[in-house]
Amino acid sequence: MSEFSHWNEVGRPKMVDISQKNETKRSAVAQSTILLKKELYDAIQNAEIKKGDPLQVAQIAGIMAAKKTPDIIPMCHPIQLTGVDFHFEYKQIGDGYELMMQAEVTCKGNTGVEMEALTAVSAAALTFYDMCKAVDKSMVIKETYLLSKTGGKNGDYRAEK
Amino acid sequence: MSEFSHWNEVGRPKMVDISQKNETKRSAVAQSTILLKKELYDAIQNAEIKKGDPLQVAQIAGIMAAKKTPDIIPMCHPIQLTGVDFHFEYKQIGDGYELMMQAEVTCKGNTGVEMEALTAVSAAALTFYDMCKAVDKSMVIKETYLLSKTGGKNGDYRAEK
Amino acid sequence: MSEFSHWNEVGRPKMVDISQKNETKRSAVAQSTILLKKELYDAIQNAEIKKGDPLQVAQIAGIMAAKKTPDIIPMCHPIQLTGVDFHFEYKQIGDGYELMMQAEVTCKGNTGVEMEALTAVSAAALTFYDMCKAVDKSMVIKETYLLSKTGGKNGDYRAEK
Amino acid sequence: MSEFSHWNEVGRPKMVDISQKNETKRSAVAQSTILLKKELYDAIQNAEIKKGDPLQVAQIAGIMAAKKTPDIIPMCHPIQLTGVDFHFEYKQIGDGYELMMQAEVTCKGNTGVEMEALTAVSAAALTFYDMCKAVDKSMVIKETYLLSKTGGKNGDYRAEK
Amino acid sequence: MSEFSHWNEVGRPKMVDISQKNETKRSAVAQSTILLKKELYDAIQNAEIKKGDPLQVAQIAGIMAAKKTPDIIPMCHPIQLTGVDFHFEYKQIGDGYELMMQAEVTCKGNTGVEMEALTAVSAAALTFYDMCKAVDKSMVIKETYLLSKTGGKNGDYRAEK
Amino acid sequence: MSEFSHWNEVGRPKMVDISQKNETKRSAVAQSTILLKKELYDAIQNAEIKKGDPLQVAQIAGIMAAKKTPDIIPMCHPIQLTGVDFHFEYKQIGDGYELMMQAEVTCKGNTGVEMEALTAVSAAALTFYDMCKAVDKSMVIKETYLLSKTGGKNGDYRAEK
Repeated sequence: MSEFSHWNEVGRPKMVDISQKNETKRSAVAQSTILLKKELYDAIQNAEIKKGDPLQVAQIAGIMAAKKTPDIIPMCHPIQLTGVDFHFEYKQIGDGYELMMQAEVTCKGNTGVEMEALTAVSAAALTFYDMCKAVDKSMVIKETYLLSKTGGKNGDYRAEK
Repeated sequence: MSEFSHWNEVGRPKMVDISQKNETKRSAVAQSTILLKKELYDAIQNAEIKKGDPLQVAQIAGIMAAKKTPDIIPMCHPIQLTGVDFHFEYKQIGDGYELMMQAEVTCKGNTGVEMEALTAVSAAALTFYDMCKAVDKSMVIKETYLLSKTGGKNGDYRAEK
Repeated sequence: MSEFSHWNEVGRPKMVDISQKNETKRSAVAQSTILLKKELYDAIQNAEIKKGDPLQVAQIAGIMAAKKTPDIIPMCHPIQLTGVDFHFEYKQIGDGYELMMQAEVTCKGNTGVEMEALTAVSAAALTFYDMCKAVDKSMVIKETYLLSKTGGKNGDYRAEK
Repeated sequence: MSEFSHWNEVGRPKMVDISQKNETKRSAVAQSTILLKKELYDAIQNAEIKKGDPLQVAQIAGIMAAKKTPDIIPMCHPIQLTGVDFHFEYKQIGDGYELMMQAEVTCKGNTGVEMEALTAVSAAALTFYDMCKAVDKSMVIKETYLLSKTGGKNGDYRAEK
Repeated sequence: MSEFSHWNEVGRPKMVDISQKNETKRSAVAQSTILLKKELYDAIQNAEIKKGDPLQVAQIAGIMAAKKTPDIIPMCHPIQLTGVDFHFEYKQIGDGYELMMQAEVTCKGNTGVEMEALTAVSAAALTFYDMCKAVDKSMVIKETYLLSKTGGKNGDYRAEK
Repeated sequence: MSEFSHWNEVGRPKMVDISQKNETKRSAVAQSTILLKKELYDAIQNAEIKKGDPLQVAQIAGIMAAKKTPDIIPMCHPIQLTGVDFHFEYKQIGDGYELMMQAEVTCKGNTGVEMEALTAVSAAALTFYDMCKAVDKSMVIKETYLLSKTGGKNGDYRAEK
């Protein structure tokens, strides 16, 4: 098993020294899924919010949140992100719908962007909830996790499924 | 069904005018759950991070994130929070463990603190992930949702379970 | 002529004490205008950016910037905004086009929201520029000013035109 | 005509991937102009605000805003600015005065600093307005635009006049 | 002796619930002192930085930091400050000089502004150091403390001297 | 004597152009000391705040503040910190106690991290004060200063004692 890295010798959290790590191209994809009732899905599709689209707001919020990651996650290093994009997909599941969200973040830096991707997709999910909660407060955000990452000393990673 | 409220007459997102709403005492509780492998749970309990405790960092991150909510969720109003606290609980589930996190937020204001509670609990979950990801990257954040809210015109709410 | 209020007795800038001012409902509208070449206007209208719409991003950026005003304008008080919305209008002017942007901000507070409206409309204009600058860097933001305000001791104001 | 770059294949705004672009020295100068009535100009010059000088506050606000650009303009990349400075000039125009403001921003990075210069000069203009609005609310901010830029693949640019 | 209030029943830090406390007018004054060598003091006075004055920058930084207090001090409540001002005084002490800085912060709220005054004066001291460190890195910031506070249930306070 | 570097040719503060400076590994250590009464020290040690520990909160606040330095100190450049850690030590001094705090910050960049270390240690001291002020408001933060720095053109520095 690997060892905890974020704690100093007296057990207090530190920002790990990464000055010895190499600057390489890195990427990470994180995923989250929101459960929607049929009524909410229909309302969104039927343009009841006219040309308004909650995903537009969610994507912008997610991209801005990726940039705020070191301000939200205490031990995260400031990183100069080189790109952020999202992929969304609705799927019918029984009576209702599932909205799958994926955030992909890239950087050229000394440490990975896993937390940036996870923060981006979480902010997008929360924003989608906010834009639609007047219609349905009972939406549930399910299974937020790191789907994959590339670059860095420990090599690539892909979640098992 | 209620109507979408966050969109103006041409379908663009707006910050809803709440100046007519009453200033009342309001609260909201949001919950999230993280799945941990036995090895990670044991490492945390066996004080391998000495007196370090990921929940301490998670709680502080969650409280600070609650205050940043209007900066993260685009259409959220700035609100003067009057209190934020957390409740954590580990449960054994089959081979592994579940960490249940609840954030409770209170305010005296013209609008509710649902998004503040959801943002707080999400930031706490992401921070817990960050503090432990050197040991296990495959943790999954499950079921983030609004557990309950009190105060405001629409009255109290409690998630069905 | 009125007197400068933002300076202390030795000529240094201060955040004026507003604790004696009354909490009233206040609003402000600020306007800005962007000059566009015909080619850019056509590109936007012809859906060359598919369902993408620079105004959507501009509006969200403007609303978020309104909330950041006390962080951007040094002597501004933190104010709890109760609402922010935008109004956009394209007009043909000779060969090209003019995009008129108006931001309306409301609050219930001890001081006005003029700076919030001006900051919102400026951020929206800059964001529109950013979203379109790959096509035309030569856009000019013209005449940014306070159109009107209501509420407060000094009463209503409307720009002469 | 160049193509829009800030939109993904389904028309949603993205933070463009710049990891293939070269890190070069870059600079940008943006300009804005404020119209002042003679009374306001005289009040500032006649030291009615003692040693206070609205330009001092405007310059500091502009430099701080340059650093906040990726937080204000949604699709902007975080960039490590290497320098920011301002140049101001008052000119008599008929009855009144014009205050010309220029912000110059430099960086060593993978993308340009046009938005940083525009954001800096806009924040400086708004701050000047804020510091003087007690005397005259009717000031107009005119013609904010990119004056020039150097560095980067697309080469230098200078606004035609 | 009073009791710690910022910890919940399991010993984790919380944002204390202040919704039962009264909204009253409150103020706090915090003080800090910087030791300067004669050479640095002379350089500042002899206008070697022309009309530049480190105190101008320090005051603006301090006022902006007061507004950022809940973002810097984890358990601080967001408070709507109603005013912030500074008082500075140089005194000759033996061979060198002492710069005394006082920040006064006021609010109308449910909790005090002690932390806002302390944060403001600390940011001003750090900024003064930054503006002058090219000349002398060895400046020492001495004795930062709460000088006085008014308002609130526990009444007024004044530091003994 | 060295010259002031943070002022432009008309005496206004600028962000100095560092694009000619070399990117090297740099570090800085800043120190602060808090005076505590015996009663407060005993309360902390006697676990009256159970497993709560003000230093845990102080360390996290300090690390987060290090990242916010360019947002707090107006002329500071944004820097990509590579590491932040703290060292704390209580010493009995006569009747009371002294808590010595040291923040160490590292980066690989074009300018030093002195201000980041000073900001980190100041935020930690202020946070410690906040966590304990319910017990004793009269704590004094003494002697905050730069202990040492390494890297950069001007070479290493160590405070004389």
